[in-house]
Amino acid sequence: MQDCKSFNTSFLQSCNPAMPTFKVVLAYDGTDFVGWQRQASGVSIQGVLEDALRTLDDRDVTVIGAGRTDAGVHALGQVASFSLERAIDGDTLVRALNANLPETVRVMSAAEVPPTFNSRFDARTKTYRYRIWNGPAMSPFERRHAWHYAGPLDVGAMDAAAQRLEGRHDFAAFQTAGSDVATSERTIVSSRVARHDALVAYDVTGDGFLRHMVRAIVGTLIEIGRGRRPAEWIDDVLASRDRHSAGSTVPAAGLFLVRVDYGTRLASEP
Amino acid sequence: MQDCKSFNTSFLQSCNPAMPTFKVVLAYDGTDFVGWQRQASGVSIQGVLEDALRTLDDRDVTVIGAGRTDAGVHALGQVASFSLERAIDGDTLVRALNANLPETVRVMSAAEVPPTFNSRFDARTKTYRYRIWNGPAMSPFERRHAWHYAGPLDVGAMDAAAQRLEGRHDFAAFQTAGSDVATSERTIVSSRVARHDALVAYDVTGDGFLRHMVRAIVGTLIEIGRGRRPAEWIDDVLASRDRHSAGSTVPAAGLFLVRVDYGTRLASEP
Repeated sequence: MQDCKSFNTSFLQSCNPAMPTFKVVLAYDGTDFVGWQRQASGVSIQGVLEDALRTLDDRDVTVIGAGRTDAGVHALGQVASFSLERAIDGDTLVRALNANLPETVRVMSAAEVPPTFNSRFDARTKTYRYRIWNGPAMSPFERRHAWHYAGPLDVGAMDAAAQRLEGRHDFAAFQTAGSDVATSERTIVSSRVARHDALVAYDVTGDGFLRHMVRAIVGTLIEIGRGRRPAEWIDDVLASRDRHSAGSTVPAAGLFLVRVDYGTRLASEP
Repeated sequence: MQDCKSFNTSFLQSCNPAMPTFKVVLAYDGTDFVGWQRQASGVSIQGVLEDALRTLDDRDVTVIGAGRTDAGVHALGQVASFSLERAIDGDTLVRALNANLPETVRVMSAAEVPPTFNSRFDARTKTYRYRIWNGPAMSPFERRHAWHYAGPLDVGAMDAAAQRLEGRHDFAAFQTAGSDVATSERTIVSSRVARHDALVAYDVTGDGFLRHMVRAIVGTLIEIGRGRRPAEWIDDVLASRDRHSAGSTVPAAGLFLVRVDYGTRLASEP
């Protein structure tokens, strides 16, 4: 185990080299949850995970999630970290947690990591996917996991507009009012739209995302896809820094946190 | 409209050239249904469809389904036929039915067909898919639509065994006891197993299927995939005509009626 020299102690998790720290990758169907984060009322992903860990470690365990997904948002690869008092190997931890979690939340893998690891602050990029079912009738198998848009969509124009968001920009136009972040600048590494039969998918990777940012971008791309605006219009929306100039926020059911990447820093980082 | 000369009047639907006949393609999530067919109790797909048609045509309408899927079995392309007193175009019929159906049942397309059309007797082949989630933890997005098998599976051996079922055979060994069909001979046109990442899929096309036949075949293929039996063992099972020699019947949640084909007859048919 490493020592705690480089550890950021300002955020919840205490660094104790005597306690093993774990990184887990989670998939969840967010439909029936109030979101990642514990709330005053309602069931959260963090809450059911901490409850499962309490069963295991016989004490209160605080879990840190890489991305605080909103109510109804899903994950294929959310990452969480926590420390335990007991030693346990990764495969046993996967089985023990899944035995105590609802079927809608699954630990897909688990591994011990250095005690300095923090799933939130160490994350370099996150990748989200927004899924649109673009057919006359909504597939019964997609209704909880995609947004239904029945009209024709020009996916080529949407993709051209999406790519214009790549790079370092102030994304204030795509931020829900009332967010309390220090800066609304973010770096988008990749931003693409593609069709797979009736499914239209928006895939975006970046160093961070503002509140409702992906869903506001998709609402804006839809205006372009339905032909009401040209692809270049997204430059004006971005430059305006005004939430009212962008499209509406599309429903949570279509959004997935696909992956969190650690390791290589972006060129723009110190 | 055609006349009724060639029409098989022995099965429910009456041929009336004055009444337009429709063919609809349905997708449904079978999880919460007692199956395709109306039962003394519980909600059936046929039941919700006939209820929706009663709203539309203001009279009792009898619907004929191509395949009578069991409780919990899904469909991507079930085909049903019925006659209405009122004339209506296909797109309007799709919208009107979907407005009166639960979200778990969707009419994907509808078209007027000759009054002699019978979705059940005119079907040439049906294609089923059985989906196995073959990973350490069950994906939360697959739990209603796949069967979870966590152990290692030799998909190459399963595929080799599956192909040995192609052709005309007596499938009595894969039939649930108590079925009241005249013959247990069926022609299997294609029978293959393939892996797509964690998903193992069995795809089978044939001119007809006995009760629980696909699920009993998959239970048998699993014995081969886990290495307990060689691929050639499936020949002995088939030859035995004994249900007890085959593998167990795997759960309904993994089974999909993918497609019903009309038109070209099989070479073995009269």
